Amino acid sequence: MMNNVDTKSFITECALKVDSFLDKYLIIKDSYSSKLIESMRYSLFAGGKRIRASLLISSYSLFSDNIDIVIPFAAAVEMVHTYSLIHDDLPAMDDDDYRRGKLTNHKVYGEALAILSGDALVTKAFELINDRSISPSISDTARVDISTSLSVSSGDKGMIAGQVADILYGENSTPDKSLLKYIHMNKSTELIKASILIGARLANAYEEECRLLSSYGNSIGLAFQIQDDILDITSSKEVLGKTAGKDVVQSKLTYPSLFGLDESKRILDELLNKAKDDISFFGDRAKVLNGISDYIIYRDK
Amino acid sequence: MMNNVDTKSFITECALKVDSFLDKYLIIKDSYSSKLIESMRYSLFAGGKRIRASLLISSYSLFSDNIDIVIPFAAAVEMVHTYSLIHDDLPAMDDDDYRRGKLTNHKVYGEALAILSGDALVTKAFELINDRSISPSISDTARVDISTSLSVSSGDKGMIAGQVADILYGENSTPDKSLLKYIHMNKSTELIKASILIGARLANAYEEECRLLSSYGNSIGLAFQIQDDILDITSSKEVLGKTAGKDVVQSKLTYPSLFGLDESKRILDELLNKAKDDISFFGDRAKVLNGISDYIIYRDK
Repeated sequence: MMNNVDTKSFITECALKVDSFLDKYLIIKDSYSSKLIESMRYSLFAGGKRIRASLLISSYSLFSDNIDIVIPFAAAVEMVHTYSLIHDDLPAMDDDDYRRGKLTNHKVYGEALAILSGDALVTKAFELINDRSISPSISDTARVDISTSLSVSSGDKGMIAGQVADILYGENSTPDKSLLKYIHMNKSTELIKASILIGARLANAYEEECRLLSSYGNSIGLAFQIQDDILDITSSKEVLGKTAGKDVVQSKLTYPSLFGLDESKRILDELLNKAKDDISFFGDRAKVLNGISDYIIYRDK
Repeated sequence: MMNNVDTKSFITECALKVDSFLDKYLIIKDSYSSKLIESMRYSLFAGGKRIRASLLISSYSLFSDNIDIVIPFAAAVEMVHTYSLIHDDLPAMDDDDYRRGKLTNHKVYGEALAILSGDALVTKAFELINDRSISPSISDTARVDISTSLSVSSGDKGMIAGQVADILYGENSTPDKSLLKYIHMNKSTELIKASILIGARLANAYEEECRLLSSYGNSIGLAFQIQDDILDITSSKEVLGKTAGKDVVQSKLTYPSLFGLDESKRILDELLNKAKDDISFFGDRAKVLNGISDYIIYRDK
């Protein structure tokens, strides 16, 4: 297993490669659209941890060391993640002024541009995936599979379904385990799992390998969200870079609110162990992915 | 050339096929996401003219009569068009309460769900295009081309760029021909042209044929938008189903405001003639597309 320092340097390397790609890819092409591109870039480069990109790249690295070829696809996933954050932060949604210690997109560029920048980012992700001039050795068949994976996981059967359930039913609701699981699985786990499976697809992994990674993705994605819930209680605004304690104020349905803090931490450990079991099949090559699992679960922000 | 009755019945047939497909495709799968699907369906079935779908299908029909195979792709284009209308109507954007005589999405479902329904519709369009169980004879290569066409035309180099320029610079601006053309070409023409080219791509058209259809799309798309500008002045709310005269109130940059009504109509005729010239190459098979050109230009709402 990689130690914590190795994992952090791997994630840093992934983030640098993804950011460097995005910096060259998303450029101003004319004066009329310069504000749009500026706004898209503002949120893209607002200090995201690039966890989804790192998961995609380390899933691919189970099979191959030539990670440069998958960087653009990792960037596409981060575009989708960024768009979802811009829209989630809007006044009509979670109404957040800060994220990662910086003003949210609509606080800087106004609501109209924030909505349109989100729209442009999700659209751009599909443009990127289907651009044959980028990583030209990737087949059309793989591009179709990846487009499917990304659209299904982030759409009305995935991320958006989770966000809608959270908005409509997640606040001031009666304790409801199946609703909580629905929100967490859809709102964040599906895209995390898709990131891992896209990495495997790019490496032409076998079906059985994808099945193991899918199971791993379910556990690690849910664990990620539970840790998010826990940090909202145990951390501060200074560390999180966003308002802490908001879930309690909004009476949000979370793991700690439903199971208590101790039981939530126990579930977290259980999920982490299950995730590691799932990928033990890959032996020594799984050390990067295992390192990232630990990092995700034991992060402090 | 088809007469007006033939054209209307062709468009009606296209609309029925597209609506029937969408009705079966977009279904409620669980109770938590039922409101989301309901909201997506509300705007999808709010009485759109299905002009983009009809253009895609009649472009395909230049080459083949088996139009059923392209209906899902026409539906995907209408999903993208519908999403753009939902977001355009939002309070932060054009702030419209009515469209096609019905309440806009956010007036019925609230802003959060309107934003998310738009998000889900554009995402669903890419899911649909890349679903091999739908029109299975369409190759992965075609699906990649279509995803590219749709994402580029509706993204930061197309529709969204036009909308941003309209919002930032289109109101109370000094008369500026290049800005006006930029807004019209990007905001509506690009997606109209893409619809036509996707039809041609699905029929495996030759490059030279695509070039002619691209030129046709540029003319007909711009003409469509100029007629939109003209109708805003000459028509009424009862006929349009949305607020008329809004462009003048908002001092919007339009063809009539820049060139006057008569000159705008002259430009319209010129574009229509050019469009018909572009597709004269296709001889008798072009009669459907020509009929639609007339319908688009001489429509009263």
